[in-house]
Amino acid sequence: MGGDSPTEELVRGGVEIGRLREIEILFAGDAHRIETALRRLGETTGTLFDILDCPEVISMEEPPVRAVREKPSSSLVRGLRTLREERVDAFVSPGNTGAVVAGALLTLGRIRGIPRPAILAPLPTLPGPDLFLIDVGANTDCHAEHLLHFARMGITYAQELAEASRPTVALLNIGEEQSKGNRLTEAAFSLLEADDHLSFIGNVEAHQILETRPADVIVSDGFVGNICLKAIEGGVSGVTGFLKQAVRRSMATRLGALLMKPAFSSLRRTLSYRERGGAPLLGVNGVVVIAHGRSDARAISTAIDGARREVEARLTERIAGSIPLRVDHHGS
Amino acid sequence: MGGDSPTEELVRGGVEIGRLREIEILFAGDAHRIETALRRLGETTGTLFDILDCPEVISMEEPPVRAVREKPSSSLVRGLRTLREERVDAFVSPGNTGAVVAGALLTLGRIRGIPRPAILAPLPTLPGPDLFLIDVGANTDCHAEHLLHFARMGITYAQELAEASRPTVALLNIGEEQSKGNRLTEAAFSLLEADDHLSFIGNVEAHQILETRPADVIVSDGFVGNICLKAIEGGVSGVTGFLKQAVRRSMATRLGALLMKPAFSSLRRTLSYRERGGAPLLGVNGVVVIAHGRSDARAISTAIDGARREVEARLTERIAGSIPLRVDHHGS
Repeated sequence: MGGDSPTEELVRGGVEIGRLREIEILFAGDAHRIETALRRLGETTGTLFDILDCPEVISMEEPPVRAVREKPSSSLVRGLRTLREERVDAFVSPGNTGAVVAGALLTLGRIRGIPRPAILAPLPTLPGPDLFLIDVGANTDCHAEHLLHFARMGITYAQELAEASRPTVALLNIGEEQSKGNRLTEAAFSLLEADDHLSFIGNVEAHQILETRPADVIVSDGFVGNICLKAIEGGVSGVTGFLKQAVRRSMATRLGALLMKPAFSSLRRTLSYRERGGAPLLGVNGVVVIAHGRSDARAISTAIDGARREVEARLTERIAGSIPLRVDHHGS
Repeated sequence: MGGDSPTEELVRGGVEIGRLREIEILFAGDAHRIETALRRLGETTGTLFDILDCPEVISMEEPPVRAVREKPSSSLVRGLRTLREERVDAFVSPGNTGAVVAGALLTLGRIRGIPRPAILAPLPTLPGPDLFLIDVGANTDCHAEHLLHFARMGITYAQELAEASRPTVALLNIGEEQSKGNRLTEAAFSLLEADDHLSFIGNVEAHQILETRPADVIVSDGFVGNICLKAIEGGVSGVTGFLKQAVRRSMATRLGALLMKPAFSSLRRTLSYRERGGAPLLGVNGVVVIAHGRSDARAISTAIDGARREVEARLTERIAGSIPLRVDHHGS
């Protein structure tokens, strides 16, 4: 509940991936609507699928922390509680991102040693493998140390989920030279450079991300990461719009566009978040995946499948295990 | 000098626009190379064109402030001096952006009442008219008050150069609600909202810029604005790359691409910085336009023409005149 898509669409996504992977899905939300949706798909509760009735909904516009505190019976909060109680292995939501982050922090808590959880977004690249941008919105004001942790979590994700053997990490900046950037990137550069466990390759600029895939993981504060993600998205949809305008001007270009249809469809698939399995929230005690607010059945399917892969890779434990010990334990 | 393009290419751009608009161009740089370039174009000095011999060059990688201080005989510093001495009306450079900003600050100084100069970038939009994003890189760490001044300067630019009658301004943010964003945007929102002289429409997100043109002017700190600009650029070039990959897969799509060639060319023209006349540095005492480092003759031409339009619109005076008086002048 709480996302932009109707319950039926979301349930269909869950049913499709549940059947395909034999994953048990617990749908958190309005029981009646979920049951109706399941029935239409020829499913009942009690087999692979079950319902967690939640009378409250947190909408996309609500202030996150307050919504989470004031709506304990929302699908968001109840869903996260079942994860904390280990009745489920993962939580997937197409709802209010800020509320998912706040809810996960309050309900699951942080992994010990991680000061701030962060959202990782997989991005398509021309060379092929996805690139991981972290953080894309969980933290709007960051210290350099937070970025260091984002780098470590991103690298663990790339190792465990994308099977990168020695993932490289770069810092999102406005120039490649070390001297470029603002106070935060300057401090983060030094920290990243000083960490022997990271393959830090330096600064990268936003225009390189899709075309050259300069690193496996790119770190930034959540404000800048979110702007970067949406600006890339805007560039992509802008070109598509301009091209449509230009095509309309002659018969030849219209015919050309018709012939190119398979290429445009393939492009759409390559670029779509619907195929990318949602954006994991890393650094909390449990697998939490944030699906796009406008997720259709396909997007929900891939997001749940992404969550399954995180569970099978034991990602939460891997991230906990990747934190260098800070406590002084001489003689203990 | 100092940009990525050869002298000959830059001189050609100057000669072309000089002839077209009857603008006198003073080329700052290596006299011998400029003279050779002029001769090849059938021009000599002393008519529309003249040379300011500068033995030093500031390269793209040099730390801006130091370079400006240590190279008083560079084309960048000498060029700016001729502007201060009013021997020319405007200064255009495809060189090191940071050095142009530092040089302009040191040589020309700020307009009284403007705490920080800012770079404005014109962006193409689907609805048609360009949108102006300010700041795209002059200031990497900003206070909210700086953003307020960027808004005022952007609006003056839109009024004088794009003939917008009552330009609207928006704040670049990661969500539309007022509560979204980081500390800087939160503070800037309040300042922008409180200013009666601005048509402030609230927050806008980066993915809206090209498609919906949500405002005439969008403000952000220079770090975020630069990331946004380059990410849009990256989205655009990424799509182009993905599309090329997809087209290669069949004969039909290749033929389609061939037929669509005019549409692709029109798209390229629409999106190209080469047609946009460079990025003005606003807030310094004089017309300064920063051209793309990889500017070819066409890009230099449009940048010089943009500078001409600023001069004719008396933009520097207009910006100075738009600053509300702060001094207490009762009885004076």
